[in-house]
Amino acid sequence: MSLFGGIEAGGTKFVCAVGSGPDDIRDEIRFPTTTPEETLGHAIKFFRKHHRQTPLQAIGVASFGPVDPNPASPTFGYVTTTPKPHWAHTDVVGRLRAALGLPVGFDTDVNGAALGEHRWGAAQGLDTFVYLTVGTGLGGGGMANGKLLHGLMHTEMGHMRIPHDRTRDPYKGWCTYHGDCWEGLSCGPAIEERWQTNARDLAPDHPAWALEAHYLALGLVNIITTLSPQRIIMGGGVMDQHQLFPMMRREVQALLNGYIQKPEVAAQIDQYIVPPGLGNRAGVLGAIALAQDAPAT
Amino acid sequence: MSLFGGIEAGGTKFVCAVGSGPDDIRDEIRFPTTTPEETLGHAIKFFRKHHRQTPLQAIGVASFGPVDPNPASPTFGYVTTTPKPHWAHTDVVGRLRAALGLPVGFDTDVNGAALGEHRWGAAQGLDTFVYLTVGTGLGGGGMANGKLLHGLMHTEMGHMRIPHDRTRDPYKGWCTYHGDCWEGLSCGPAIEERWQTNARDLAPDHPAWALEAHYLALGLVNIITTLSPQRIIMGGGVMDQHQLFPMMRREVQALLNGYIQKPEVAAQIDQYIVPPGLGNRAGVLGAIALAQDAPAT
Repeated sequence: MSLFGGIEAGGTKFVCAVGSGPDDIRDEIRFPTTTPEETLGHAIKFFRKHHRQTPLQAIGVASFGPVDPNPASPTFGYVTTTPKPHWAHTDVVGRLRAALGLPVGFDTDVNGAALGEHRWGAAQGLDTFVYLTVGTGLGGGGMANGKLLHGLMHTEMGHMRIPHDRTRDPYKGWCTYHGDCWEGLSCGPAIEERWQTNARDLAPDHPAWALEAHYLALGLVNIITTLSPQRIIMGGGVMDQHQLFPMMRREVQALLNGYIQKPEVAAQIDQYIVPPGLGNRAGVLGAIALAQDAPAT
Repeated sequence: MSLFGGIEAGGTKFVCAVGSGPDDIRDEIRFPTTTPEETLGHAIKFFRKHHRQTPLQAIGVASFGPVDPNPASPTFGYVTTTPKPHWAHTDVVGRLRAALGLPVGFDTDVNGAALGEHRWGAAQGLDTFVYLTVGTGLGGGGMANGKLLHGLMHTEMGHMRIPHDRTRDPYKGWCTYHGDCWEGLSCGPAIEERWQTNARDLAPDHPAWALEAHYLALGLVNIITTLSPQRIIMGGGVMDQHQLFPMMRREVQALLNGYIQKPEVAAQIDQYIVPPGLGNRAGVLGAIALAQDAPAT
């Protein structure tokens, strides 16, 4: 069995794992994201140790962003214009490649998770689907026509604009760029600032969740109409509030109002808007999937 | 030179052409869309006449919808749940195939136009882009990863939800399904109902156009964040108001607020949001492109 290294490179923490798939993770560590030197240094040390024992075939990185995921670009593999201190214009792939001498696959965190879900989770056999994470931010990736979404750069689904119900919700929104974009109204910090409460302390029947389901459903409708995905997978800390799923599904149907006559968004909507098949391991397994797909250098 | 037949099948009129590309259209006719029998009958007669003179290789149909564009489906090639009288559940491809004995390519009107733009127009060399038409309705298609967008069914971009500025614009929206969805706020009939004026009679500096540019820009931002297209091509009757282009481009930049740091949406935005390279011939040439891509039966 070929072994691969995966890095789920988050803005708060890094998770590094060695393995070949969901049933074969040999080792895993996690540590906070500090400076690139220190953080990538930890990762390199971890993989070097393993590589000496059993050679790794490649490394995959599913990274916070914005990133440059275009292999033809001179800044491929960089974290680019992030406001995160120390990380703007960091050559993540170049450093790993130089230190480990291995091929490195690289994409956004959400595209990585999407690839993991496609290989082993809730998106198996689909060619067009979306993976969303709703947590400290709101991000989306996925596939169209059997390949990860890239285009001009990569998707930034959290920054679409949706109707903001100012009567019901005068909160101005969390996003420093756009205020009340989709992320600005729906991410975890927005919930906490709006209700002045830790999200975990809001009871499942608190009105916060009906409002959250409403905003999430508006963005889902925009994704459904713009991309026509065969399934939408939703992970991240906010989605651990499982009561959101039935509320969102009902609201998506109400908003579509029968316009899209497909069983997937009607009787079968329980299988259309779903949690990750890999649970909270979609990210790190996605990084391993990116390693498996890394072209030899 | 192989010859093909193309049908731009609109809800108001059909345009049929015979040729091989933009510089080689041998004949063209147009007639109103009445019943399927009569309308498809006209088309069949036109192509039969040509096929007797010089054999056609295939027919392509770029159709109003909703349609079933999935070749693996038992209702492939149907206009499906349209509210248009007589046309619901019409087997367009089956009738043409039976009458003409030729392979028939089939997709939405906007995916057809997108394919035409990809082959001969403003999307040459791109793999991920969007084609929008703003006229009696608002529809979008395009490509991701070098293939036309399909997924669950086909895109219905006009039915995304955008913020509705009710202070500036109390108009309720035109869409019978959703009221103030993107199409409901932005299509030609919405402009005319809102301002109680024929759109052609609204001067280029009438506030109608600033509002239109604002709504169009909101939807464009949602497409940019959800699909990351390398270019957006906009045709249709409303876009003949060329003053909209610079207004939309400025508004898209204001809404993105520097979040996506790519030259395409900054200094080069004049080449990012553009009219069709094929002008108002994108539809019928797209149908010919669909014919060229029709698999042999």
